[in-house]
Amino acid sequence: MTLNVYLSGEIHTDWRKQVAEGARGLNIAFSAPVTDHAASGDCGVAILGPEPSKFWHDHKGAKLNAIRTRREIEMADVVVVRFGDKYKQWNAAFDAGYAAALGKALIVLSPPEHQHALKEVHAAALAVTKDPRQVVEILRYVLTGELLSAGAAAVE
Amino acid sequence: MTLNVYLSGEIHTDWRKQVAEGARGLNIAFSAPVTDHAASGDCGVAILGPEPSKFWHDHKGAKLNAIRTRREIEMADVVVVRFGDKYKQWNAAFDAGYAAALGKALIVLSPPEHQHALKEVHAAALAVTKDPRQVVEILRYVLTGELLSAGAAAVE
Amino acid sequence: MTLNVYLSGEIHTDWRKQVAEGARGLNIAFSAPVTDHAASGDCGVAILGPEPSKFWHDHKGAKLNAIRTRREIEMADVVVVRFGDKYKQWNAAFDAGYAAALGKALIVLSPPEHQHALKEVHAAALAVTKDPRQVVEILRYVLTGELLSAGAAAVE
Amino acid sequence: MTLNVYLSGEIHTDWRKQVAEGARGLNIAFSAPVTDHAASGDCGVAILGPEPSKFWHDHKGAKLNAIRTRREIEMADVVVVRFGDKYKQWNAAFDAGYAAALGKALIVLSPPEHQHALKEVHAAALAVTKDPRQVVEILRYVLTGELLSAGAAAVE
Amino acid sequence: MTLNVYLSGEIHTDWRKQVAEGARGLNIAFSAPVTDHAASGDCGVAILGPEPSKFWHDHKGAKLNAIRTRREIEMADVVVVRFGDKYKQWNAAFDAGYAAALGKALIVLSPPEHQHALKEVHAAALAVTKDPRQVVEILRYVLTGELLSAGAAAVE
Amino acid sequence: MTLNVYLSGEIHTDWRKQVAEGARGLNIAFSAPVTDHAASGDCGVAILGPEPSKFWHDHKGAKLNAIRTRREIEMADVVVVRFGDKYKQWNAAFDAGYAAALGKALIVLSPPEHQHALKEVHAAALAVTKDPRQVVEILRYVLTGELLSAGAAAVE
Amino acid sequence: MTLNVYLSGEIHTDWRKQVAEGARGLNIAFSAPVTDHAASGDCGVAILGPEPSKFWHDHKGAKLNAIRTRREIEMADVVVVRFGDKYKQWNAAFDAGYAAALGKALIVLSPPEHQHALKEVHAAALAVTKDPRQVVEILRYVLTGELLSAGAAAVE
Amino acid sequence: MTLNVYLSGEIHTDWRKQVAEGARGLNIAFSAPVTDHAASGDCGVAILGPEPSKFWHDHKGAKLNAIRTRREIEMADVVVVRFGDKYKQWNAAFDAGYAAALGKALIVLSPPEHQHALKEVHAAALAVTKDPRQVVEILRYVLTGELLSAGAAAVE
Repeated sequence: MTLNVYLSGEIHTDWRKQVAEGARGLNIAFSAPVTDHAASGDCGVAILGPEPSKFWHDHKGAKLNAIRTRREIEMADVVVVRFGDKYKQWNAAFDAGYAAALGKALIVLSPPEHQHALKEVHAAALAVTKDPRQVVEILRYVLTGELLSAGAAAVE
Repeated sequence: MTLNVYLSGEIHTDWRKQVAEGARGLNIAFSAPVTDHAASGDCGVAILGPEPSKFWHDHKGAKLNAIRTRREIEMADVVVVRFGDKYKQWNAAFDAGYAAALGKALIVLSPPEHQHALKEVHAAALAVTKDPRQVVEILRYVLTGELLSAGAAAVE
Repeated sequence: MTLNVYLSGEIHTDWRKQVAEGARGLNIAFSAPVTDHAASGDCGVAILGPEPSKFWHDHKGAKLNAIRTRREIEMADVVVVRFGDKYKQWNAAFDAGYAAALGKALIVLSPPEHQHALKEVHAAALAVTKDPRQVVEILRYVLTGELLSAGAAAVE
Repeated sequence: MTLNVYLSGEIHTDWRKQVAEGARGLNIAFSAPVTDHAASGDCGVAILGPEPSKFWHDHKGAKLNAIRTRREIEMADVVVVRFGDKYKQWNAAFDAGYAAALGKALIVLSPPEHQHALKEVHAAALAVTKDPRQVVEILRYVLTGELLSAGAAAVE
Repeated sequence: MTLNVYLSGEIHTDWRKQVAEGARGLNIAFSAPVTDHAASGDCGVAILGPEPSKFWHDHKGAKLNAIRTRREIEMADVVVVRFGDKYKQWNAAFDAGYAAALGKALIVLSPPEHQHALKEVHAAALAVTKDPRQVVEILRYVLTGELLSAGAAAVE
Repeated sequence: MTLNVYLSGEIHTDWRKQVAEGARGLNIAFSAPVTDHAASGDCGVAILGPEPSKFWHDHKGAKLNAIRTRREIEMADVVVVRFGDKYKQWNAAFDAGYAAALGKALIVLSPPEHQHALKEVHAAALAVTKDPRQVVEILRYVLTGELLSAGAAAVE
Repeated sequence: MTLNVYLSGEIHTDWRKQVAEGARGLNIAFSAPVTDHAASGDCGVAILGPEPSKFWHDHKGAKLNAIRTRREIEMADVVVVRFGDKYKQWNAAFDAGYAAALGKALIVLSPPEHQHALKEVHAAALAVTKDPRQVVEILRYVLTGELLSAGAAAVE
Repeated sequence: MTLNVYLSGEIHTDWRKQVAEGARGLNIAFSAPVTDHAASGDCGVAILGPEPSKFWHDHKGAKLNAIRTRREIEMADVVVVRFGDKYKQWNAAFDAGYAAALGKALIVLSPPEHQHALKEVHAAALAVTKDPRQVVEILRYVLTGELLSAGAAAVE
């Protein structure tokens, strides 16, 4: 059976591409939020009409994005949440909480300097990773039961 | 994955056709109640036998229709509820409440003059639209992340 | 055990009072939406600040009211939904759908002239009543198993 | 019935006390995480024994705190999540996501400068407030249906 | 905590009274359908008005009774279903199935001659008993952990 | 989407075949219990070893059958329960209750002489039919929205 | 609110008493399986009649005990599962799995020599403890937010 | 429809292969935990980095394995749990409890000498088997309704 994996969080680096490429050949269907920052921010007013207030401008867009993201989380077997080194990233933490409450398998991908600030999120996760390669290795192991040899992994 | 979209409500205009045509090429499976007004009204007695009382006549039919509509709402990812400018349309509002309680993504399609009367329904929706084209644009955005350019949308 | 009964719908007559008085002495906790029309309409902007747009004015209020009404429906054993003879009353039908999806016992209180328009809502109900006295008699019967004699009921 | 309200998030100001005092006399049971920062951070190792690694030190504590907080969120009717002006506050956003996935009524309390960064969290909320007084007024309204007069509110 | 026990099924003997008396002193709240046969059969038309058709006469009554019985089953910790030696008793089997699907602890009370015909119902039960005294002993054991001595039980 | 229909109950006539043949060409996947009476009765001891007691003989078989039937009910969109004119048929009523508690669309197929005894089961159904042809017509209508003309239906 | 704590597992030492005494004064309702080994083993046949086969002897008893234990786990906020140093204790591990699937907060109490064999159970727990005092300290902390001073804890 | 069967428990004999081979030709999708003992034990540190403490070494691995096993149990129609004659096998009992709480059809495969120690697990099962051939026969019967003739089964 196909493993459904939702890739939540940071949209400014190519980590999703790294995960997808690393996982090539595995039976995985990846999903993600809209990662085009402009489209994601303006979708509400672009489709439903302009708002003079920034709050409602954002509100309309965030609700349209929720149509996509909530469905993807609900259909996911595994939710990977990536925290980058910039911005508040509250939507990433929100997604992590949402996934945890639904009993989804949660994998966090976060830099070491955020360890303390993410301790509650990490406590809800089944794995805490530091780079996309580890995410790939987990997905490969979960699907195939195979590990790259410890040595190979260290060198790679 | 195919997006399941249930189109609830008003059956006297061709809005379902407009949505379906606008969404051609997108990976969407649309469902709808029976929109043949005579069949929908008389199905109960036609299949199960006549009733002298109008109440039970309608009751038998409404229950047969519920076999279809409840299943379609339960299988839907998105429920679009259309309010027209005529009739009581309580079944549309009922469907909206049913969908909301199940946590479905709700899109309302309603004319501006009903804004105040629909405020509780709107408050449960992730989008409030005014014409079928907006519904199509939302579905396209949710599936593809793409927006028609704001300019194009305005002109079209 | 106390029976929790939510009284939804029309706010322009004293039907809630009639039900509550008729049910005096029964172990019932009644709940209801805010029935002060002005407070209910303006609560959003009164508490959270004004909105130039009528849509958001209503939206903020409807969401505050939802904090109350959704909880009351979720805690209810029985949901009574009253349709009066005026207005669109889509929030009443919405509540009925919401209650039905949660598997609540639904009692509709509606005038005969709305029979056809309410057929889908009636089909989801365990009782369709015409006046508050019938609602009271149902609640009494459900709790005590006692019926007023048919004659007494007719005379009363 | 008592309204169960969980007060999540920022622990460096006295906002919980302000809310509790403002709500005096209302039938509300407030709950909260452990707000003693030292106890909350060290509970794991204090009870279960020391860890050389900071990650596991934090992990053991975060899991003990989760025993309390998840239960409180699950028992809550309303979850208020406060974002302050400092720190990452990912646990606040995590709680908001957790509450949203469980269908809890969510009230966000956040300063205006975080509006954009919180847009996804706000989109899941039934109210977005700016100060504890607004939270109190919402709780009062939800329970009693009463509004302070707009004028009084403005002056106060 | 009080044990909620719903006593479903046969209404022509005093088995409910035997169970209740045997369980005196135990912390149990018993519930039951309306056992007044006439009231139970006619409640629908007595309250909601007469029906010329026997089907709808019964239908209206059965739905009113469902308001009571579904709630009682849903609130029960233990559902005892009694099959007597007469009648079809399909409502008893229906209640057993309803309780089983909700994961309720099911105790069947049935005469030996029905063993084969009840095998599917028995297979869903946690206990199959032959007389009300055994039901009492189970409830006592479940609540207190105490058994009457085997000898005493035999003699009693 | 394929409609999953579980055909529960009576196994001594060919009603399942009639339904399946009548529904030929419709997008329906039918499921059913094992209808080979000997296999169904003896499967437990045939596979798991003999039992001297008739109770356990039946018990082992009924549990194996439950592996099949519960899954089929849970996967069904529509559950048709057929009551014949012989035997106790408590497993049919049990299935009806099980299906009702799971919110499945329930269609009862029963002869008129059982109307009164089945009133509670009928009250939980969305349709009460008298012959397999009506079941077929309902399934066709639910899937296609088409009715045979009333005249044609009467004649056929 | 009272914290409901179910104490599962080993019945040959007085650990439940130690926990209950240590927790005196805290708002906790403890529950437990029947810990009288003879009663627990023989309850089935003592109440429902003897069985020549050991399998069915045990089966009848285990099902009666399940009436109690499943309810207690379902009502629990926290499930403590104790593994002793003797016996197979598969029912303890079964309870842990049952509790985990229901999303209960799980605390394991187990001796260090079982660490490796319990790794899957530990991975599902929010705390792994070594002695009843640690369980008490966790419960106290969860309810009150107070820690015994680290020093005091070490000395005690 | 494909029957999803999860094969949990003992990994030191070839029972999974026997079941799979015996079931060849049946519409079954089997799943299983990772059965490579070394990979299963070390996956956590191999992917996520070494741990000086055996507890955390095991913990990281057990959580990765949980990503796989919880999903497979949740997707399973039938969960077969095998207890061998060695080791503690608490993870097998944990899986059985997990499956039982989710309402999965549970088949236990265990040697006769463990009968008493497994009585609680057996009480939650729909079948208790002694060898893989019986598991195969159950799966065949559940899917096809066919039994090998009793004689053939005895001889085989």
